[in-house]
Amino acid sequence: MKLAVIGGGSSYTPELVDGLFQRLETIPLTEVWLMDPDKERLSITAGLSQRMAAAHGNPFTVHSTTDLDEAVTDAAYVVTQLRVGGCQARINDEKLGLRHGIVGQETTGVGGFACALRTIPRILDIAHGMERLAPRGTLVNFTNPSGIVTEALIKHSSIRSVGLCNVPIGMIMDIVEGLGCAMEEVELDYVGLNHLAWVRGCAIAGQDRWDEVFQRFLELAPQEWEQEAVCANMVEAMKSLNMGFNPYLQYFYATDAVLEHIKNKPKTRGEEVVEIENSLFEKYQQEELKEKPPELSKRGGAHYSTAAFHLISAIETDAKNHQVVCCRNNGAIPGFDDDAAVEVTAEISSEGARALPQHPPEPPIRGLMQFIKSYETLTVEAAVTGDRECAFQALLNNPLLPDATACRDVLNDVLEVNKAHVAEAFFG
Amino acid sequence: MKLAVIGGGSSYTPELVDGLFQRLETIPLTEVWLMDPDKERLSITAGLSQRMAAAHGNPFTVHSTTDLDEAVTDAAYVVTQLRVGGCQARINDEKLGLRHGIVGQETTGVGGFACALRTIPRILDIAHGMERLAPRGTLVNFTNPSGIVTEALIKHSSIRSVGLCNVPIGMIMDIVEGLGCAMEEVELDYVGLNHLAWVRGCAIAGQDRWDEVFQRFLELAPQEWEQEAVCANMVEAMKSLNMGFNPYLQYFYATDAVLEHIKNKPKTRGEEVVEIENSLFEKYQQEELKEKPPELSKRGGAHYSTAAFHLISAIETDAKNHQVVCCRNNGAIPGFDDDAAVEVTAEISSEGARALPQHPPEPPIRGLMQFIKSYETLTVEAAVTGDRECAFQALLNNPLLPDATACRDVLNDVLEVNKAHVAEAFFG
Amino acid sequence: MKLAVIGGGSSYTPELVDGLFQRLETIPLTEVWLMDPDKERLSITAGLSQRMAAAHGNPFTVHSTTDLDEAVTDAAYVVTQLRVGGCQARINDEKLGLRHGIVGQETTGVGGFACALRTIPRILDIAHGMERLAPRGTLVNFTNPSGIVTEALIKHSSIRSVGLCNVPIGMIMDIVEGLGCAMEEVELDYVGLNHLAWVRGCAIAGQDRWDEVFQRFLELAPQEWEQEAVCANMVEAMKSLNMGFNPYLQYFYATDAVLEHIKNKPKTRGEEVVEIENSLFEKYQQEELKEKPPELSKRGGAHYSTAAFHLISAIETDAKNHQVVCCRNNGAIPGFDDDAAVEVTAEISSEGARALPQHPPEPPIRGLMQFIKSYETLTVEAAVTGDRECAFQALLNNPLLPDATACRDVLNDVLEVNKAHVAEAFFG
Amino acid sequence: MKLAVIGGGSSYTPELVDGLFQRLETIPLTEVWLMDPDKERLSITAGLSQRMAAAHGNPFTVHSTTDLDEAVTDAAYVVTQLRVGGCQARINDEKLGLRHGIVGQETTGVGGFACALRTIPRILDIAHGMERLAPRGTLVNFTNPSGIVTEALIKHSSIRSVGLCNVPIGMIMDIVEGLGCAMEEVELDYVGLNHLAWVRGCAIAGQDRWDEVFQRFLELAPQEWEQEAVCANMVEAMKSLNMGFNPYLQYFYATDAVLEHIKNKPKTRGEEVVEIENSLFEKYQQEELKEKPPELSKRGGAHYSTAAFHLISAIETDAKNHQVVCCRNNGAIPGFDDDAAVEVTAEISSEGARALPQHPPEPPIRGLMQFIKSYETLTVEAAVTGDRECAFQALLNNPLLPDATACRDVLNDVLEVNKAHVAEAFFG
Repeated sequence: MKLAVIGGGSSYTPELVDGLFQRLETIPLTEVWLMDPDKERLSITAGLSQRMAAAHGNPFTVHSTTDLDEAVTDAAYVVTQLRVGGCQARINDEKLGLRHGIVGQETTGVGGFACALRTIPRILDIAHGMERLAPRGTLVNFTNPSGIVTEALIKHSSIRSVGLCNVPIGMIMDIVEGLGCAMEEVELDYVGLNHLAWVRGCAIAGQDRWDEVFQRFLELAPQEWEQEAVCANMVEAMKSLNMGFNPYLQYFYATDAVLEHIKNKPKTRGEEVVEIENSLFEKYQQEELKEKPPELSKRGGAHYSTAAFHLISAIETDAKNHQVVCCRNNGAIPGFDDDAAVEVTAEISSEGARALPQHPPEPPIRGLMQFIKSYETLTVEAAVTGDRECAFQALLNNPLLPDATACRDVLNDVLEVNKAHVAEAFFG
Repeated sequence: MKLAVIGGGSSYTPELVDGLFQRLETIPLTEVWLMDPDKERLSITAGLSQRMAAAHGNPFTVHSTTDLDEAVTDAAYVVTQLRVGGCQARINDEKLGLRHGIVGQETTGVGGFACALRTIPRILDIAHGMERLAPRGTLVNFTNPSGIVTEALIKHSSIRSVGLCNVPIGMIMDIVEGLGCAMEEVELDYVGLNHLAWVRGCAIAGQDRWDEVFQRFLELAPQEWEQEAVCANMVEAMKSLNMGFNPYLQYFYATDAVLEHIKNKPKTRGEEVVEIENSLFEKYQQEELKEKPPELSKRGGAHYSTAAFHLISAIETDAKNHQVVCCRNNGAIPGFDDDAAVEVTAEISSEGARALPQHPPEPPIRGLMQFIKSYETLTVEAAVTGDRECAFQALLNNPLLPDATACRDVLNDVLEVNKAHVAEAFFG
Repeated sequence: MKLAVIGGGSSYTPELVDGLFQRLETIPLTEVWLMDPDKERLSITAGLSQRMAAAHGNPFTVHSTTDLDEAVTDAAYVVTQLRVGGCQARINDEKLGLRHGIVGQETTGVGGFACALRTIPRILDIAHGMERLAPRGTLVNFTNPSGIVTEALIKHSSIRSVGLCNVPIGMIMDIVEGLGCAMEEVELDYVGLNHLAWVRGCAIAGQDRWDEVFQRFLELAPQEWEQEAVCANMVEAMKSLNMGFNPYLQYFYATDAVLEHIKNKPKTRGEEVVEIENSLFEKYQQEELKEKPPELSKRGGAHYSTAAFHLISAIETDAKNHQVVCCRNNGAIPGFDDDAAVEVTAEISSEGARALPQHPPEPPIRGLMQFIKSYETLTVEAAVTGDRECAFQALLNNPLLPDATACRDVLNDVLEVNKAHVAEAFFG
Repeated sequence: MKLAVIGGGSSYTPELVDGLFQRLETIPLTEVWLMDPDKERLSITAGLSQRMAAAHGNPFTVHSTTDLDEAVTDAAYVVTQLRVGGCQARINDEKLGLRHGIVGQETTGVGGFACALRTIPRILDIAHGMERLAPRGTLVNFTNPSGIVTEALIKHSSIRSVGLCNVPIGMIMDIVEGLGCAMEEVELDYVGLNHLAWVRGCAIAGQDRWDEVFQRFLELAPQEWEQEAVCANMVEAMKSLNMGFNPYLQYFYATDAVLEHIKNKPKTRGEEVVEIENSLFEKYQQEELKEKPPELSKRGGAHYSTAAFHLISAIETDAKNHQVVCCRNNGAIPGFDDDAAVEVTAEISSEGARALPQHPPEPPIRGLMQFIKSYETLTVEAAVTGDRECAFQALLNNPLLPDATACRDVLNDVLEVNKAHVAEAFFG
């Protein structure tokens, strides 16, 4: 049984490999393949992973390759965690945003848009590779903007895929810690899109415990949103809606405060990440290191491997349990297309993820979800077709973008900067 | 057969009365009742209307009253054109918007919101009066924000109602003039909400003539949007979408340009209107004046009476013809609630308006329509219940409004300024 | 706190009263009112009920009345268990069916149709009485055809209502007995209309136990459907669908076998019931009888009071637990109108019943549900309006009815036989 | 420009070829390819077609082949009019129906079901051939059961396809004749599935003329349904619904009368057809025959070539006119799946057929449409997968079929008789 990690040269790889050792009973892997076009980083992460495996008695072999086909052939699971264009592309997005006075964040605003245009063609290459070489495998997508990328997979590939994000499982962990219950007992009424979701209720062991859980959300707000002005906006909105928030909602409920903060930061988040990664990779190279270093937690992505293997083991064991994932809507959220990617509680079985039917989103959250979904749908289409008008209309439907003529300028800038990575048809 | 005009002291009244003379064959009125709480203005418009009727041989009698019940009793049609709080309230809205750096326009942005909170309770008083005293009458609503007000009527009254706007009929007139056809031959593929609508196609006498009609839209753009920067944005978006635009879309596709313009104007539009109206009412008082004065056209509202009587005569004659109106969706636009007010082509018969089924709105327009519809739905509910949280959530779902805490400040300001007119429960 | 029982002269009344004694903690009743137009039967059931209350230390008082308004005034709960026209009307339906060679069963086929025409006007009288005199009360409907009657309540009254049937709770009890679990732990994936429902799955304490539960359904089939030919048909269909069946599905999957059986029975079910009831009422009159007699169980309606008070106590205590009831669809089953009555798992709280969102019904069950729902919708409309064409179209849409001209004959016969009870407009 | 006719050995072929001569201006064909596995019949129809072409100055060449790939390669249009198993298979279906006491008609009841199981695999072979060899071609399907076959094409092929039936165009012709208007002016409010459709209204040149058109339907009823008892049933239902009927509705509104008639006929329709065809083919062989013989009209299928070329010329010229066809629903009829085949007015352009949005079907017709659609959906799935349970469930959802165990017997019989033609998996 083979697992392939595309983008295996990522600094997250040790986190992922580490998670495997505890799960071998339900996920009896025999081979882990790390694939990355960046040979240098790949050799470092593969080396560390092999030392980690050895320290655990080599329950599986660790391979590295720069060949996509080799990586995915006969894989039962393919985890995608790529970053097309590397950190530099992310920094470009952030700076492009600043240049136009708008948010250039990795998944939201123009940054997420540019990232989607770069990433979707690559992800579809992987999926098409699997169609040929691992048609019964499951693609687990961590690549951002995860919701948009997952929608591209749903619409343009026949491969079974599930989108994952560490936010929902992080919320559950916070509840577990705060209320003293078991993770399996927590059922969130979680509804939305990736990075645009709301928690409307929570049952623990079948009992409604929303009042306490909501207090927990309020209590953790200052940690979630460290900027005071941002936090004030979020708490204002949370209290009115009586809902818990995915932290990325800050871009919509605290737009001005977030933008103010971004503009005043000495470095962009991407620049910070580069520094962290450099130091991590230095560490990874130390031959004596045989487990994931504690510094890795600074990189973000807590619960990343927990989420991945919680999902994979439920598929492997046909568990039919409930997990919050990003998947095909299929009628689960009324008012959204069947083939839209949504983030909700789904039943996980050997068939993959089946979104559970949800109460219709109420007007205070429905409209924003629908607006962003239009943006996402247009972005998927633009990324696949390379149609400039479609791309322009995507930006026109993003509330973080400016007037129509300014959207045109932003688009031209995005395409120019990312010429090497996006569909050629944009320039044809 | 009786027609009642609520807000009969409006400067538009002579336009409305004038329109009646040409329509007597299909609308055999015997009585016109003008109702207004403002006795002074009412006596002026009633006097002029009576002189106009006399000049046409008194085909119907003209009455004036400040009593709502008297006005609506047994009315076949009740036309509503009120402005709760008068022009001063409109000016307050505009200034409130400027104070918070946002759009305070009469129907869009915070101005439309404040106007809805003031107007809906009064409109429902009229509808409830009709339920008692004219249960088979039809309410024709011109009162702004017309879409939101019409949705309140749909949801909170059993009276048959139709919302009207002079924009769609104005578009048709522009096509008639440009392409040299008859008004009856023009069928627009017009879809959206009031003041948020798109024209996706046009058939003339059953033939597809969209290419020419679209050119006409482009040709008229500089007249429609006089500010060059605004116009440039609108043309950019129109060309990409290949659609004609309701002019109010400027607030969404040219937000910054419009706001810049508003901020720099010496007077608000409401202040300009006050001046025009003062001069009109002076004119109206002249005993020798026996028809609507040409100056009235400056006031805006071209085609206002054409729209009203085109509709009323189709209802009277059970014409089953097609007109663009604001009415109950009832499944006509997929993805919107049955009881949402939408602006589309409808079949007009003795049963009122029945929205015709439409092609689903495409992603480039769907999301914005849905987002604004959520705002509208929340606004109707806030106006009726006086629930502050609902009102806050309405503002949070309006893309022209700022961050959450700023929305709270705006809401407090709106309620304070409009205390005399909005639901008491807001302060309870 | 007052409970009113409309149709309090029914032989079921002692079952209902008996159930109250165990529930007093969560349903702290102080008064029980039995209302029935049949004074003689009422005095018998009221007498027995009073003796039963006395034997339990009079935790509440028992009253009897023939006046509907008196009965419902200020009632917290109104349970309806009427039979318009008494048992004779039911026998008439059965014989009418036999006369035309079709099923005349109490709830399904022409019998259910005739019963709906008789019952709906009376049920709406009760609901309108509550609107005036007990506007915050809840109507719990047991009256057949329960699904159609509940849809009439949803559409034509503002009173909160819930339809109940003893079949779903009976299924749960069978599972409890067979698998040795607690009633609260059983969650059925139960979907359909009243008397037309399927069980697609079952979780016990959060674990999927469908395979065992399905075996239990198969095991109990010969008890459920005593006629061998009927049972063979049902088992054939159950095995193919891998679903549990509401027993009334026999009329659709075993139509010929059921009809054959009915035709050969010496007495109709209604005639048998008359005999059982005569003997029960004789018993009830015995002064020494102070509790419900064991013979009552023969009458059918097992779990009747359990269902009623399980529901009422969940409303009283705002339990937010899950129960299978008949209620407003409100989007819970995709493809059905919001105001259709459906039978599904609902959340029961102080707000009443809120249908939980369901997986869309699959093609093997969807079409039949939709076909019967059209029949039900037309039946409700016919019963309320007295429109003969609407009634004819209802029959035309019932697969148990014959050709169009024969449907016309059946309709004429139904209306003639039931002239005293159905809407006058049918004859106007 | 090439047209391929699959099933070119059909007796209809001369009708089709004849229709081409009048349409050459809008359909500039250069090659017609007749493909049929039956060499003998093919040589006869090809011979006659070549003589017909010669008589018209050979505007196109006529070719014959038994090779599917050769026939479809580079075809602009592929017309399918096959009959898998020939007339004998149809006669088998009819007799099988009689054997089980049910309707075995070619498109409705068990006959249509058996025909679908035989036909769908062959039609998909054609479509897959086109995917490889004529990916931009359009498949025009006349093969029965046309609605089910078209749904299979929609769901299991990427080829553009349109289903056609001569009933809708026949209705229009009857209106043209009765009311004296032009065919282009008639717009039917036609809604339903193939062979299960209703006409709810009719506009002629934009004016509502329903009352007259409905009278025309009534007037023609005795011709449409020659058996008096059948006609009486249909008129009874038509008058109640105030709708025109697709003649095949007789199987649902006059089931008993039709069955009675079929049972008493000395020959089945298939047997009659064999005789007509034998005589036609004798005629076709006469060397002097150079045009379609008048006897062909007896065969049924009037307006067959009119329908085909009206459609094809609208596609060729991108006419954007309206025609009633069987195509992908895509939201046009609310309450039906997007990928269901429906029969409605569609816009015909170079993109193919786009169903126009329809008023939701009313309850008197909605339920039956939905029930039959479930049957059709299951039949498509059974034909493609060869899953016996799916096939059994299809029959269980057809109101013309008997009890569950009898459905099982019918299914076994169908599969046994058609072993040579249906999916092998049924026996695997």
